[in-house]
Amino acid sequence: MGETGMSKVVLFGELLLRLSPHGNERFVQAQDFHAVYGGTEANVAVSLSQWGQHACYISGLPVHEIGQAACNALRRYGVDTSFLVKKEGRIGVYFYEKGASERAGKVIYDRERSVFSLSQKEDYPFEMILEGAQWFHFSGVTAALGGNIREILHEACRIARKKHVVVSCDLNYRSALWDRDTARREMTSLLKLTDVFIGNATQTEELFCISSDLPEGEERTFSAAERLREMFGFRLVAFSERRTINAGRNKIFARVYDGTRRATSAVYDMEMVDRMGGGDAFAAGVIDSVLKGKSPDETVSFAAAASALKHSVEGDFNLVSEQEVRDLVRGADRIVRR
Amino acid sequence: MGETGMSKVVLFGELLLRLSPHGNERFVQAQDFHAVYGGTEANVAVSLSQWGQHACYISGLPVHEIGQAACNALRRYGVDTSFLVKKEGRIGVYFYEKGASERAGKVIYDRERSVFSLSQKEDYPFEMILEGAQWFHFSGVTAALGGNIREILHEACRIARKKHVVVSCDLNYRSALWDRDTARREMTSLLKLTDVFIGNATQTEELFCISSDLPEGEERTFSAAERLREMFGFRLVAFSERRTINAGRNKIFARVYDGTRRATSAVYDMEMVDRMGGGDAFAAGVIDSVLKGKSPDETVSFAAAASALKHSVEGDFNLVSEQEVRDLVRGADRIVRR
Amino acid sequence: MGETGMSKVVLFGELLLRLSPHGNERFVQAQDFHAVYGGTEANVAVSLSQWGQHACYISGLPVHEIGQAACNALRRYGVDTSFLVKKEGRIGVYFYEKGASERAGKVIYDRERSVFSLSQKEDYPFEMILEGAQWFHFSGVTAALGGNIREILHEACRIARKKHVVVSCDLNYRSALWDRDTARREMTSLLKLTDVFIGNATQTEELFCISSDLPEGEERTFSAAERLREMFGFRLVAFSERRTINAGRNKIFARVYDGTRRATSAVYDMEMVDRMGGGDAFAAGVIDSVLKGKSPDETVSFAAAASALKHSVEGDFNLVSEQEVRDLVRGADRIVRR
Amino acid sequence: MGETGMSKVVLFGELLLRLSPHGNERFVQAQDFHAVYGGTEANVAVSLSQWGQHACYISGLPVHEIGQAACNALRRYGVDTSFLVKKEGRIGVYFYEKGASERAGKVIYDRERSVFSLSQKEDYPFEMILEGAQWFHFSGVTAALGGNIREILHEACRIARKKHVVVSCDLNYRSALWDRDTARREMTSLLKLTDVFIGNATQTEELFCISSDLPEGEERTFSAAERLREMFGFRLVAFSERRTINAGRNKIFARVYDGTRRATSAVYDMEMVDRMGGGDAFAAGVIDSVLKGKSPDETVSFAAAASALKHSVEGDFNLVSEQEVRDLVRGADRIVRR
Amino acid sequence: MGETGMSKVVLFGELLLRLSPHGNERFVQAQDFHAVYGGTEANVAVSLSQWGQHACYISGLPVHEIGQAACNALRRYGVDTSFLVKKEGRIGVYFYEKGASERAGKVIYDRERSVFSLSQKEDYPFEMILEGAQWFHFSGVTAALGGNIREILHEACRIARKKHVVVSCDLNYRSALWDRDTARREMTSLLKLTDVFIGNATQTEELFCISSDLPEGEERTFSAAERLREMFGFRLVAFSERRTINAGRNKIFARVYDGTRRATSAVYDMEMVDRMGGGDAFAAGVIDSVLKGKSPDETVSFAAAASALKHSVEGDFNLVSEQEVRDLVRGADRIVRR
Amino acid sequence: MGETGMSKVVLFGELLLRLSPHGNERFVQAQDFHAVYGGTEANVAVSLSQWGQHACYISGLPVHEIGQAACNALRRYGVDTSFLVKKEGRIGVYFYEKGASERAGKVIYDRERSVFSLSQKEDYPFEMILEGAQWFHFSGVTAALGGNIREILHEACRIARKKHVVVSCDLNYRSALWDRDTARREMTSLLKLTDVFIGNATQTEELFCISSDLPEGEERTFSAAERLREMFGFRLVAFSERRTINAGRNKIFARVYDGTRRATSAVYDMEMVDRMGGGDAFAAGVIDSVLKGKSPDETVSFAAAASALKHSVEGDFNLVSEQEVRDLVRGADRIVRR
Repeated sequence: MGETGMSKVVLFGELLLRLSPHGNERFVQAQDFHAVYGGTEANVAVSLSQWGQHACYISGLPVHEIGQAACNALRRYGVDTSFLVKKEGRIGVYFYEKGASERAGKVIYDRERSVFSLSQKEDYPFEMILEGAQWFHFSGVTAALGGNIREILHEACRIARKKHVVVSCDLNYRSALWDRDTARREMTSLLKLTDVFIGNATQTEELFCISSDLPEGEERTFSAAERLREMFGFRLVAFSERRTINAGRNKIFARVYDGTRRATSAVYDMEMVDRMGGGDAFAAGVIDSVLKGKSPDETVSFAAAASALKHSVEGDFNLVSEQEVRDLVRGADRIVRR
Repeated sequence: MGETGMSKVVLFGELLLRLSPHGNERFVQAQDFHAVYGGTEANVAVSLSQWGQHACYISGLPVHEIGQAACNALRRYGVDTSFLVKKEGRIGVYFYEKGASERAGKVIYDRERSVFSLSQKEDYPFEMILEGAQWFHFSGVTAALGGNIREILHEACRIARKKHVVVSCDLNYRSALWDRDTARREMTSLLKLTDVFIGNATQTEELFCISSDLPEGEERTFSAAERLREMFGFRLVAFSERRTINAGRNKIFARVYDGTRRATSAVYDMEMVDRMGGGDAFAAGVIDSVLKGKSPDETVSFAAAASALKHSVEGDFNLVSEQEVRDLVRGADRIVRR
Repeated sequence: MGETGMSKVVLFGELLLRLSPHGNERFVQAQDFHAVYGGTEANVAVSLSQWGQHACYISGLPVHEIGQAACNALRRYGVDTSFLVKKEGRIGVYFYEKGASERAGKVIYDRERSVFSLSQKEDYPFEMILEGAQWFHFSGVTAALGGNIREILHEACRIARKKHVVVSCDLNYRSALWDRDTARREMTSLLKLTDVFIGNATQTEELFCISSDLPEGEERTFSAAERLREMFGFRLVAFSERRTINAGRNKIFARVYDGTRRATSAVYDMEMVDRMGGGDAFAAGVIDSVLKGKSPDETVSFAAAASALKHSVEGDFNLVSEQEVRDLVRGADRIVRR
Repeated sequence: MGETGMSKVVLFGELLLRLSPHGNERFVQAQDFHAVYGGTEANVAVSLSQWGQHACYISGLPVHEIGQAACNALRRYGVDTSFLVKKEGRIGVYFYEKGASERAGKVIYDRERSVFSLSQKEDYPFEMILEGAQWFHFSGVTAALGGNIREILHEACRIARKKHVVVSCDLNYRSALWDRDTARREMTSLLKLTDVFIGNATQTEELFCISSDLPEGEERTFSAAERLREMFGFRLVAFSERRTINAGRNKIFARVYDGTRRATSAVYDMEMVDRMGGGDAFAAGVIDSVLKGKSPDETVSFAAAASALKHSVEGDFNLVSEQEVRDLVRGADRIVRR
Repeated sequence: MGETGMSKVVLFGELLLRLSPHGNERFVQAQDFHAVYGGTEANVAVSLSQWGQHACYISGLPVHEIGQAACNALRRYGVDTSFLVKKEGRIGVYFYEKGASERAGKVIYDRERSVFSLSQKEDYPFEMILEGAQWFHFSGVTAALGGNIREILHEACRIARKKHVVVSCDLNYRSALWDRDTARREMTSLLKLTDVFIGNATQTEELFCISSDLPEGEERTFSAAERLREMFGFRLVAFSERRTINAGRNKIFARVYDGTRRATSAVYDMEMVDRMGGGDAFAAGVIDSVLKGKSPDETVSFAAAASALKHSVEGDFNLVSEQEVRDLVRGADRIVRR
Repeated sequence: MGETGMSKVVLFGELLLRLSPHGNERFVQAQDFHAVYGGTEANVAVSLSQWGQHACYISGLPVHEIGQAACNALRRYGVDTSFLVKKEGRIGVYFYEKGASERAGKVIYDRERSVFSLSQKEDYPFEMILEGAQWFHFSGVTAALGGNIREILHEACRIARKKHVVVSCDLNYRSALWDRDTARREMTSLLKLTDVFIGNATQTEELFCISSDLPEGEERTFSAAERLREMFGFRLVAFSERRTINAGRNKIFARVYDGTRRATSAVYDMEMVDRMGGGDAFAAGVIDSVLKGKSPDETVSFAAAASALKHSVEGDFNLVSEQEVRDLVRGADRIVRR
């Protein structure tokens, strides 16, 4: 904790308890649930911590032992939890059943009225939290929680801007959480405070009604990126893309645009171990690359490879080292002996 | 379904998802949670179904797959779930960490705003449900949920009385759910509609302020039973008692009083496998015995043995046969070969 | 139990205990066997029960706890077991080792002299059982058991016909159980009492010596279907087909012919989780569709999709909802969030 | 294989597949069965092999992979399986549910018509098998299987006697396998060919109607031993005794009589991990001690300690070293570090 | 990290990978090893961190992923690992088989030539590490590793003394690691730099040849404590005591002497879940109490209760809260509901 | 043991304890390690034993229980361990994390200073061991261990040659164990004592600098084989080849050359369950085929199919029967029922 070049990244969002049947079991067969903890910003935090950044995760959790276990899951991978708030209440839960072959994966949310979603503004002293930070990251999922959260988020962004902290946002639009019109309106106001935009290309085009006569492909995606830059003044737009073959096999790739360079990654054809957190791994790859001063081409390669690797790791966290991502980028061997 | 002598018993209460770390693991160590379903009235229903009664369980569950799994857990052991209501919403959850030796067991509840606790009166057509029933059972835990539940419960008791259905109540006072004064007031009004009272002796004395100069023991307990009979007009009072040696070892015994006969069971000294549902097993033993026309002595013996056996069975349900309970009553062998 | 449109389907066959090593372990490595229960007609019953039918399963099981566990496995998924016969004796067992890549799956049967195979005619009062039924289903596996079973089966078909109950048969020819000549003779006499025929196309052609100069394909299969209709007077012929790529990957599709319409399903290319019960899932899809008045095209689509989904579910039972099958038919998303 | 002082011990009996629910689960809860292999003579063979003897186990098993796994279970612990016969057929199975506290353990047998029970005389060339042997051991369980087994057993004993091979028998009377009169008649004729008798004292007195006015205790047991010596001409009588506190706690001790010395072991008060094979561990302790020329006092101490240790080991086999048994005899430490 | 009243405690020692068969399995049965990390000082660090201290753990680990996992195990419970050294090499391993009933537990060490045991003096900048610390703790196990470790330890103690940091030592003599004479000589020189002594009473008397004519008991132990104070000038002597009933049941209690007050704890009679780390939990209890300014009576009660609770927790770490220890001291309930 | 046609094959090498996280878990996630035992020559021994050869495995192991478990793992599958040496010391360990999709597998070795690597010449009486043997096999991994091992290996080869025992070597070059120049020099001297060469084609060409202008393919590989024959006088050269698609999918095939016939196997496209031991399975296939007098075409088919099957089996050992290999060669069914 203190290596040269380590940047402080502050992340704000909700940590959920994820409960999954073992292997290919269905919910109605499960006698056990595998328990991991995850949440879009927490997943980004774990990636960044592993890659040498000082990831400072801001959230609220219950005071009981399950809340402590959630906190421990982050500490285990080096995330700074010193600003986590503990209160009476519940932790949000989601049940996740993996898909297989023709059978779709399933998510059942039970996250309402969690400690985090009932946060008070005074729980998070962002003036103090953002002191010394280089980066602030949040996602559309956090914005979707409503209540005080949205206001806290706006305040955090404003303080970040004031302190010249880079702000990034992963759009992550979920129709189950809010309707399209509310989402567009709220995200528009938040994105105006954002420097680096990360999102799924198709979803972004739809939410912001960026219509185009162009056929699907490079040209169309980059012109959408250009439109976004114009609309919000982003320094960087990073798009991930996914093609679903079936529940066990997907292809992904990514594009990054900084106003000048149009960079596209390799395509990864993946047998999926766990698809949760694939987009968060991509977001972490973008943030880490920009913090380390990488070019758009290096950024898109690293972020896409990080995302591809996530799909091979159980749980929400992308437990891969920077070296492993780089090895995949350069096409290294399939077995490593030491 | 239709054997001679089978009685229809209607039970009303909440079914929870219980999540427990494996073996002796603590919450903060758990990578998996063992999932079972339980609830005080549901536990009674499973016992009765196994012992040949037609147990008709009335509750509300979410429409999603976890709700279905909860329903299936009851169907698996023969409980009639045809009046279960399925709605959008959540299932109540409790996390349970077993104690061991000097370390106490722990329960964390996350049951607020469940589908059941938000029940509407019209969800449960008790006039139809209680048609043909011999018995109606509920517990103080259900009464404690408040909201519409208490009113629904009163209505169910009134209909039961009108139809000459025997009403039993397991006091099951939990200070975490409601305060003593509210509990006393509400339970008093419900117990006036009750025929058979089941409870822990000490707890009952405390809640209803039945003071006594008598030292702890038979005399004191039976005079408390007499007081209760006078206060509420019960046909039968059944008390269980527990002495805690440590988190892994308890002694239990029971007493039953019908206004005439003072019956006391053997004392069971138990190495505990799972202490959840021990009181519910006792309640089921009382109900089954009364339905089968047993004497107070037979009743107390059967119910205490059933409760003792529950402590050796994993989960909330007392998965033991009537024959196994009878074998324990008569002190049969420790290994059965067939 | 009593929703509008629910039909009573009676199924007659054997329920086996299946014991499988975990994951990809071989028999000689196994320290544990995963235990599920299955049997061709029982598998059909579970599908139908989930899809809203009243599935009444007729069989014999031992009185001991393993027999009870087998019965519970059916009750868990809503199958009516009230006519199950319990007797002294054994349950049939099969050991199943999954194949992987180049390594073939293995089945070792230990099913001789089971309670079911030693059934007496008086165990099954089919006059009473078939009262109010719309459908009676059995398979060639049941017919192959010999002894009294074949006679009981003939009697059941005769009673069904008398009561205008639709009779369906899944050919399911297994050379390990009986020789081809006996099978052809016996099945011929049973199929004369059958309305709806279900089978693997190739196997059916071989067993009934339906030779053809036509190349493999649609034309050849439908002309075989026409021949069968002529031979036995079937209302409907439903053929499933399987192409094996390796032990972990198969393609399946299906064809249905009602004398007029030649309907063919989509082809499903599947990474297999568990191939047991794939044909039974198809049979259930056919029965459910016909009961719900679907067209041959709807029938073949639903039944093939149901079968494809089964290959992604552990165990013998096809634990998928009607909605999930319909989602696959219309090509829905690969992850479902709610 | 060939150390000085190693003796060849031939054992003849049946090897069964044992299937047990995990931990304290009941049969009706089990989703998995833990699989081990065991049988009274096989259990003795494994003990002897570990303690340096050449244990040659004679039995019949199916040719399939489960039969191979059973054979491998013995090879793993050094038992000589070169005379095992492999044939088409089934392996005997038993389901075993452990007891806990007040709940009795349960055994369900499914061993009829196994390959072993259908043995032919020519399967076992005992003239060749017993060449170079010092000892032949069998139990009353084997004698109880009837059919050809009893005749084969008589023949083996006769050949052993002819070759001056010591013959030992563990009475092991099981009322579930045969009635008392048949058992008494058959065992009497086999025990006349036996040199060393091993059995539970109470069971032995009952089967052979050795009545006594003496109160339970040393005097009574040793006079029963004397009676047996007179009746059958035994060189040594070894009695084990068990006192059951509950399903999880037993006390055991033993007595050995050689016509001169009345030796009694210490009493072991045991928390039981697995009670199967406790008697077989005792028998192995007796055989090993006699082969190594130990005194009755050394024999009874070693055999009782071996039996006590078995109760702490999962499965049927007593996987403890000679050193561990000796450590218990001399009261060594409770933790061993190396 | 920075709450009022938090003290910085520096701990120096080795972290080992512990591999244990599941449940009651023996080494020769194990198909899986449960992996935890532990070491006497690390175990103390985890306790202190949970109880609100800033525990700074100093050690060396391999750079590979298993080394990372070891580090993560400490971070998970809040231990400061920022001074951990990572180098090429191996991690020490120990295999641990739990005892049960009459069967002793077993430990097999494979810890030679670990990264820690090959430490260089320059790996640990103790001048910097001890800056701001209140306490430095080490054990006799660390001293026993020899090589550079002993010299590093002396240096650390000298720096601690210079900086007025309290030094504590847990004697923890292990005859498998070094002989008695070397141990006495080395420990004598280290104890002269020590303020607070922690040890097993019997072991301490033996190692330092503190003979006594007094019978075992309070008088004898406290006079030994007085002798130690005289020999080494300790501020506090804390003795734990253990009485072994069998491998699954032990009694423990403790005594603390500060030169004035002779304080003795309650006796705890424990069914043991995991006996590893019992002494370390006691040491942590002493250190935490002294840091919090507790009296000898409070210290001995808290430390003994902490040690008793450890025996109920799987693994080496004593994962119990300060509140749980206090609850045991005051004899609280056996089940906690919230 | 003694069937006609069984040949004695002696194998010399190291047996390691392999520890792997479950399923797709990463090292940093593992709470359990699955433990198997393996080593290149041991893996060959298990294959040969299963296929009817007398495999006599020569190695050194620690005297403790983990060493015993390693020995038992070989006995379980019929390998003759009577010449295994047991000494104080440690067993070599390797940690193996499976790869998945884009994520490479990982191996961490901890094998230094094992009992085997510290072997003394007098531990292995090869004059006696090779008595009656037909074949002696070793690999380049054994040669790489250095110390006395290389000298012992030379001596063993010389004795084998003297006794007209066929010597085979699997090149198995591992850059982590030794540098290329040392390897080339040492292997050259050992291969001069070798009759049958087995290796990966590309690796062999590189190590022995067999340059070629030919494009990759049949011509090039066979001319390399011819070069090797010329250099070392081999009777047979057997090359395996692997094409990596990703961490979960590989293609393999093989070529065999006996100086006359250029035989090439089918190509197997494999979903990999466990890639460890794939080359050893190939080596065993070559040895078994030559011992049974098969042609180069039969040899290459059998050996390649054996290797393909290994990739579908968990652990290092290729637990497949000769019949299963033959079934794959002739393209048999994907499910076998008996």
